[in-house]
Amino acid sequence: MIIVQKFGGTSLSDDCSRQHVLRHIRRERAEGHRLVVVVSAMGRRGEPYATDTLLDWIADNGNSLPDREKDLLLSCGELISAATLCSLLNREGIPAVALTGGQAGIRTDARFGSARIVGVNGARLLEYLEEGKIVIVAGFQGMTETGEITTLGRGGSDTSATALGAALQAGIVDIYTDVDGILTADPRMVSEARPLPMVSYEEICNMAYNGAKVIHPRAVEIAMRAAVPVRVRSTFSEGTGTLVTRADSVRRQSGWTDRPVTGLAHVKGVTQLAVATEEGPSDVQLRVFRAMATNGISVDFINVTPAGVLYTVIDQDAGEALKLLGGMGLAVRSRSGCAKVSVIGGGMNGEPGIMARIVEALTAAGIPILQSADSNTTIWVLVSEEDMVPALQALHAAFGLHLVPS
Amino acid sequence: MIIVQKFGGTSLSDDCSRQHVLRHIRRERAEGHRLVVVVSAMGRRGEPYATDTLLDWIADNGNSLPDREKDLLLSCGELISAATLCSLLNREGIPAVALTGGQAGIRTDARFGSARIVGVNGARLLEYLEEGKIVIVAGFQGMTETGEITTLGRGGSDTSATALGAALQAGIVDIYTDVDGILTADPRMVSEARPLPMVSYEEICNMAYNGAKVIHPRAVEIAMRAAVPVRVRSTFSEGTGTLVTRADSVRRQSGWTDRPVTGLAHVKGVTQLAVATEEGPSDVQLRVFRAMATNGISVDFINVTPAGVLYTVIDQDAGEALKLLGGMGLAVRSRSGCAKVSVIGGGMNGEPGIMARIVEALTAAGIPILQSADSNTTIWVLVSEEDMVPALQALHAAFGLHLVPS
Repeated sequence: MIIVQKFGGTSLSDDCSRQHVLRHIRRERAEGHRLVVVVSAMGRRGEPYATDTLLDWIADNGNSLPDREKDLLLSCGELISAATLCSLLNREGIPAVALTGGQAGIRTDARFGSARIVGVNGARLLEYLEEGKIVIVAGFQGMTETGEITTLGRGGSDTSATALGAALQAGIVDIYTDVDGILTADPRMVSEARPLPMVSYEEICNMAYNGAKVIHPRAVEIAMRAAVPVRVRSTFSEGTGTLVTRADSVRRQSGWTDRPVTGLAHVKGVTQLAVATEEGPSDVQLRVFRAMATNGISVDFINVTPAGVLYTVIDQDAGEALKLLGGMGLAVRSRSGCAKVSVIGGGMNGEPGIMARIVEALTAAGIPILQSADSNTTIWVLVSEEDMVPALQALHAAFGLHLVPS
Repeated sequence: MIIVQKFGGTSLSDDCSRQHVLRHIRRERAEGHRLVVVVSAMGRRGEPYATDTLLDWIADNGNSLPDREKDLLLSCGELISAATLCSLLNREGIPAVALTGGQAGIRTDARFGSARIVGVNGARLLEYLEEGKIVIVAGFQGMTETGEITTLGRGGSDTSATALGAALQAGIVDIYTDVDGILTADPRMVSEARPLPMVSYEEICNMAYNGAKVIHPRAVEIAMRAAVPVRVRSTFSEGTGTLVTRADSVRRQSGWTDRPVTGLAHVKGVTQLAVATEEGPSDVQLRVFRAMATNGISVDFINVTPAGVLYTVIDQDAGEALKLLGGMGLAVRSRSGCAKVSVIGGGMNGEPGIMARIVEALTAAGIPILQSADSNTTIWVLVSEEDMVPALQALHAAFGLHLVPS
């Protein structure tokens, strides 16, 4: 079958890591699979070919690069990675070719810096695979119809990988990273966090949108639409990581049908704003959100009542939001330094008492809930930043996430 | 008018040099010219984005990059230069775009590593120029019809510049470098060497082919065919350098009609081979040259007589040539460490006595001539390497090259 492997920057940044990459390629090839390998730029700020180093270079040289040319520049980071891996494979006698995103058939719109994939033509990749070659593709980049080089934005290599996987109807897309898979919570916050053998597309999307930095949600959505399974696994270990697939497969295969909650995620640095609108004109609530939108301020945790409007913004936007609201003559209370804790589970829908268990756990830990919200697969609570780690730990224990079977 | 400017690696390698580059661009722009700026990769081995550094990187990582992928990798060096200059210009409020060679319309064949330009479509460049933008083009690279990225080989940025100049019918192609123009001889050999205000296309081609590293001969030929004048000038000074144009223009404009010799060039590291063929079969001479050709050994200074064959190879090829000739049972005398001194002048054709003056000058200096050859614009003499510098000095004086008017 066709396997798409994606290796991130930390998997390519030094010789030892690259040996692990070669090991994964050799293993799958030995099993007879045909491989498309998507690579990110190497390493971190300070290393010469890293994305941030290229951006630092421009910051020191005029700092005035238009978006179009910035993409031209950044595309080099992934090209250098692709060429490097190509050389290493060919030395071992494993025939390999390296392609730009455009050469790999990834067509995008012309939104430089955050282009969207509008189509993938896999014909050329299939030809190379047919010839028995490993096809290395520079991730994070594509090409417009008129030959402009674009980048897909941060996390774009994940998107390259799943888009190619979808176009080629790959058997699996393996996202290699520096963690052992998707965990029930961030292990820096919750030491009992356990790797999840299986999650659904929806669950991992919710985790990613709510602050878990495992895989880009756009990438998951593309895999989900094409029903291509994704695995998030470690470059540096032998574990098979976390399989991301359809919710019904998860329920069927995991043998863990009664799990209402799959994992926890969190985002810090949130400011809660309470706007009294009772005295204002009748369209004041509309005007509040319109003012946020026209000034590019994202809002969350929105709660509209006759008495007023309660919502959150990120701390960095709080100053501007307060200025805008002040200019409208509104009375505002703000509370910065809040954290959003997300309780995620594809199985919570229709399951009674989840919210009750959350409130119970947090109350027992003495943690005030500043606000809450819920969808059919996620419940969010807003707490003070100091309460975030205790809240995660209390919820992890309350839902038995330390008991997740490997 | 349209001016194509080409800046080499040393002109872009540090901030001070880049300020000179900006000065040249500002000056021509202030005079109302429309500018296409071709850039090489920055700097020298050791600097992160230099061509040699990228090659060293691969040498350390598998050292097995196919030619196709090597071109993909190397193209990044020029892209990073182009983006850097684009940022610097935009900071000054000078609108600029950066293009890959392919985006600039440079179509090549698929001979990776030394691709030939098969066509240039200047439409897109003209559009940008029409919009008042400076168009920066990554030199040394092009694209095949199927979207493969190619490089033009060393010196290729000169070729990019003259090919774009020819396609756009530019008023002039300015090759900016770290010397003040084309000199009558290498100043490290001949301290009296003087800059030439004007030379013909043919003369500079002969100089380049004979070891003077000023501009790539392929680049000159493209300019010559399109009758686009070229100027070789210094990035770091105000001088206007050397104008390279048609021989009749040189004769008309230089006011120096009776100059039989324009300059001297030299190549070291040559081995002379004398093969006795008198006793061998009748086709032995043919077999000698066939053996060299099939083994990829370039021959020069060929002199075939009934008694034998006299020719030269570069020192590095001498061992293999001797082995081949020995295998054919031929008696060979070889002399390594020779140098080829070239006396070049578009005006020597039909001028009597040039060879006599060469022999006279070298004899007076006590320098034995090991061999000679001549075309209508160049006379070559082979001397021992120890005699090379004295020979260059004697010839420079004999032809009054120290008197070239500025």
